[in-house]
Amino acid sequence: MTICRVVGHVWATKKESSLEGLKLMVVESEADSTSFVAADVVGAGIGERVLVVSGSTARRALGQDDCAADCAIVGIIDPVEKA
Amino acid sequence: MTICRVVGHVWATKKESSLEGLKLMVVESEADSTSFVAADVVGAGIGERVLVVSGSTARRALGQDDCAADCAIVGIIDPVEKA
Amino acid sequence: MTICRVVGHVWATKKESSLEGLKLMVVESEADSTSFVAADVVGAGIGERVLVVSGSTARRALGQDDCAADCAIVGIIDPVEKA
Amino acid sequence: MTICRVVGHVWATKKESSLEGLKLMVVESEADSTSFVAADVVGAGIGERVLVVSGSTARRALGQDDCAADCAIVGIIDPVEKA
Amino acid sequence: MTICRVVGHVWATKKESSLEGLKLMVVESEADSTSFVAADVVGAGIGERVLVVSGSTARRALGQDDCAADCAIVGIIDPVEKA
Repeated sequence: MTICRVVGHVWATKKESSLEGLKLMVVESEADSTSFVAADVVGAGIGERVLVVSGSTARRALGQDDCAADCAIVGIIDPVEKA
Repeated sequence: MTICRVVGHVWATKKESSLEGLKLMVVESEADSTSFVAADVVGAGIGERVLVVSGSTARRALGQDDCAADCAIVGIIDPVEKA
Repeated sequence: MTICRVVGHVWATKKESSLEGLKLMVVESEADSTSFVAADVVGAGIGERVLVVSGSTARRALGQDDCAADCAIVGIIDPVEKA
Repeated sequence: MTICRVVGHVWATKKESSLEGLKLMVVESEADSTSFVAADVVGAGIGERVLVVSGSTARRALGQDDCAADCAIVGIIDPVEKA
Repeated sequence: MTICRVVGHVWATKKESSLEGLKLMVVESEADSTSFVAADVVGAGIGERVLVVSGSTARRALGQDDCAADCAIVGIIDPVEKA
């Protein structure tokens, strides 16, 4: 799971039908600062630090194995304690 | 899902049979500027910004789990709003 | 499997329900120094060197194929002998 | 799918049994110049530009889901047209 | 499949039960010099150049789909001929 920050929304009027109704957010990875898009299942807001999963696990998180999304926000991070 | 720009088409006369009839496009990732090839399921055109999925999710998007494509264009992006 | 060091814990009060009860730890890859989050199944502690798996294999390690975690700590490394 | 150039063959006398009979070729990615090995299913030759898939999709392309290959050459590229 | 060199062994007394009995080796990728750990199924030795698969394909190579290993050595390379 990567730690990301939610930086925006993305809208796609024309999209594969299984993506209808999903909330798609732009997230930025803390590890390498790259941005990508994840479907949100926990009600995350702009600016929040979140846990993001990818691949087949994202489909599991979305509860539909035939969904055309390969990234999902699965948690909103409280504080991170580092040694 | 990565945000990419469609930059071209690719033709492969000689290909694995499950790829017959797929529209294969060259896309460039906004995150790292690398180019790769994705099968289009939403009617994307050159220059458009699109959402691209990879791995087993691409096969789900293409609706054929035994398809030999591991990247698919699943949405055409409207505007991206960043905080 | 990547070799990582456990560098902290992460808490997410709001999370996908399948993550409830999992011990989520921040690990740092020895290969490229990036940090990410893995669910621990072997009782690893801060500072320990561990083996981390990702993707569908992490779900296998967690024993629940519908779990929304895509990284898991599956071993605590003794010494590494290099030639 | 990545665009690669075929740069050589690789032989492994001692290998997992499911790899017997596969034509293994060294390919170089155009995106980042890294080299890796892919099983060829389309009769590609040295110097040709090819489409390569990875992960579970490669096993689909090879037509054997229990095959121990995770990269496959699935098309020989004609010309690439860029905008 | 990546081309790697075997550089060492790794021992993990405390590990997920499905890893018991596997020979875990440290391999270094020729593509980017990063090191990681793979389970060996072909009897590879230190210093040998090997073919390594990852993800669900590694579990196929190990012959146990519920195994907590996501990298496997599946071949010992003879010579590599480059154009």
